[in-house]
Amino acid sequence: MASIREVAKLAGVSPATVSRVMNGTAKVDDEKRERVLQAISDTGFVPNAVARSLFKKSARIIGLIIPSITNPFFTQMASAIEKAADEQGYRLIFCNTGTDLEKEKASLTMLESMNADGIILTTSHEEIESYVNQCKVPVIVTDRLFKENKDYNHVHCDHYTGGRLAMEHLLDCGCKKIVCVKGPQQISSAKARYDGYRDVCEEKQVQEYTIDCDYDFNEGLVMTEQLLNQYPDVDGIIACNDMVALSIYKILRKNNIEVPEQIQLIGFDGIYLSNLLTPELTTIAQPIEEIGRKAAELIIHKEENDMGEKEYIFKPALVVRQTTKKKGEGE
Amino acid sequence: MASIREVAKLAGVSPATVSRVMNGTAKVDDEKRERVLQAISDTGFVPNAVARSLFKKSARIIGLIIPSITNPFFTQMASAIEKAADEQGYRLIFCNTGTDLEKEKASLTMLESMNADGIILTTSHEEIESYVNQCKVPVIVTDRLFKENKDYNHVHCDHYTGGRLAMEHLLDCGCKKIVCVKGPQQISSAKARYDGYRDVCEEKQVQEYTIDCDYDFNEGLVMTEQLLNQYPDVDGIIACNDMVALSIYKILRKNNIEVPEQIQLIGFDGIYLSNLLTPELTTIAQPIEEIGRKAAELIIHKEENDMGEKEYIFKPALVVRQTTKKKGEGE
Repeated sequence: MASIREVAKLAGVSPATVSRVMNGTAKVDDEKRERVLQAISDTGFVPNAVARSLFKKSARIIGLIIPSITNPFFTQMASAIEKAADEQGYRLIFCNTGTDLEKEKASLTMLESMNADGIILTTSHEEIESYVNQCKVPVIVTDRLFKENKDYNHVHCDHYTGGRLAMEHLLDCGCKKIVCVKGPQQISSAKARYDGYRDVCEEKQVQEYTIDCDYDFNEGLVMTEQLLNQYPDVDGIIACNDMVALSIYKILRKNNIEVPEQIQLIGFDGIYLSNLLTPELTTIAQPIEEIGRKAAELIIHKEENDMGEKEYIFKPALVVRQTTKKKGEGE
Repeated sequence: MASIREVAKLAGVSPATVSRVMNGTAKVDDEKRERVLQAISDTGFVPNAVARSLFKKSARIIGLIIPSITNPFFTQMASAIEKAADEQGYRLIFCNTGTDLEKEKASLTMLESMNADGIILTTSHEEIESYVNQCKVPVIVTDRLFKENKDYNHVHCDHYTGGRLAMEHLLDCGCKKIVCVKGPQQISSAKARYDGYRDVCEEKQVQEYTIDCDYDFNEGLVMTEQLLNQYPDVDGIIACNDMVALSIYKILRKNNIEVPEQIQLIGFDGIYLSNLLTPELTTIAQPIEEIGRKAAELIIHKEENDMGEKEYIFKPALVVRQTTKKKGEGE
């Protein structure tokens, strides 16, 4: 295999110029660039950035492993990570797992072997633990805990407080029969949100009403029909996340139920769609950008940080928009 | 650096077992797995999947370079590519570029050096041509053409026909003053959609009305206010894509304009959100899943395919939902 020196010699330029053309790191005049590209073609040279990165201290790569590329929460978090990475000259590589454990393992292994500077992982599989512990590069776990007694770096939102805020808001609005749509309880975020709801019910001595639903808008459509059958006199719904809140709204409107006049609705996450929609969705907003940025910075500044087992918890915020309203208030 | 054989010896297992543990390709009993993980840890072995892939004929990796991770069109296309890749045992690696040419170049170089089996690229930069031509692995261009006289593999939708369909539908519905929101005209898809609109105007001798807007929902919010000022008697709007259609709907409702009673609205793309929304959006649907699958299959079956300069064009379809309606039809 040809070396970068051979390419440079053939093109009559310095190896640094070849590198500039390949990496696009600085402007090279068109004529020189053409010569370099021709020489690369003639020699069959393949610039092996990855192999090269093994000899450098840092590959300046951050790996991101997310469970769903179609949930805007994760793509917004990814955008925030990418922005932070970009500012420091790091590249982001995404892997999508569909919450499949085998894909999570394979992604960890691949990113490790690429000598990534760190890996940001969202998982709900406790079985991933030994892989995370053995990983030679720092792994930052975001959003979900995969194990109760956490001995890993974790950046997430206080989902429990979020669950409380949602319930307290609907009570404030005057709702009498509030149904909590429980997300998948094996996922820590869903469990914590539900725990918050349940504790408020206990404290206020309010009856608890629940229904199960995955973090998935298609399941949300089916679930909402069941919810209306099971609780015909419901007047408040806490969705497990914003995407499911959109499904709920759709089915309520299909049944000619007015929101918020007949049923009030609150989501969770604060994805941009929650604001883009008509009506705008009241929601418990996670500081998605801050979570993403923190995870990226832990990797970028890993030299300065103690990479021991640390938890970084962000506070969620109630964002009141158009799907909830205090009863008795004017239109 | 330790080899896989040393790890196997230390753990008292075969190299194949080490490989199985690392790749998660088959079940290994817990006790053996622990020994292997311990040996990996003791020897400091880093499984270099990428370096290894250089010696194999195929790395079984497909690279995907997309301009926006927050536009659901691209994440849906990515999901389709991933599904097709998965079925054949290929892994997908995503790179997001934000339409930045330098990031596109860097992503191409990185994926090439990883020995990807092929790269699927969406770009609107003609300058990328020499990089695509020099790339040692097949590059499939999707969605947008980056050069008129295409000498590369291209999988896309017939945006021109889509533009025609949108205009013909609004005319059928009885709209008299139809404004076409022109997407960024340096992007081939936006130009072709507008060309379709313009040709129908010419053929039907209808006055043309246009306004410019990027493929971006935030810009769509500002643009719609301008549109209403510029064309106060508009009764039909063709959005440049579905995300912008959502922005338009939001601003129309904010101005107490009824859709479709006062202004009819049609989008473009057919992303899942167009159906999830209330009201459901009438749109020109691209066969997003088919486009993604075709691009993936061209790479997976590259041995059997003639990888010459070929264009694969899919037909868009009018999907009539709730934001358009023939005038005079009952409620």
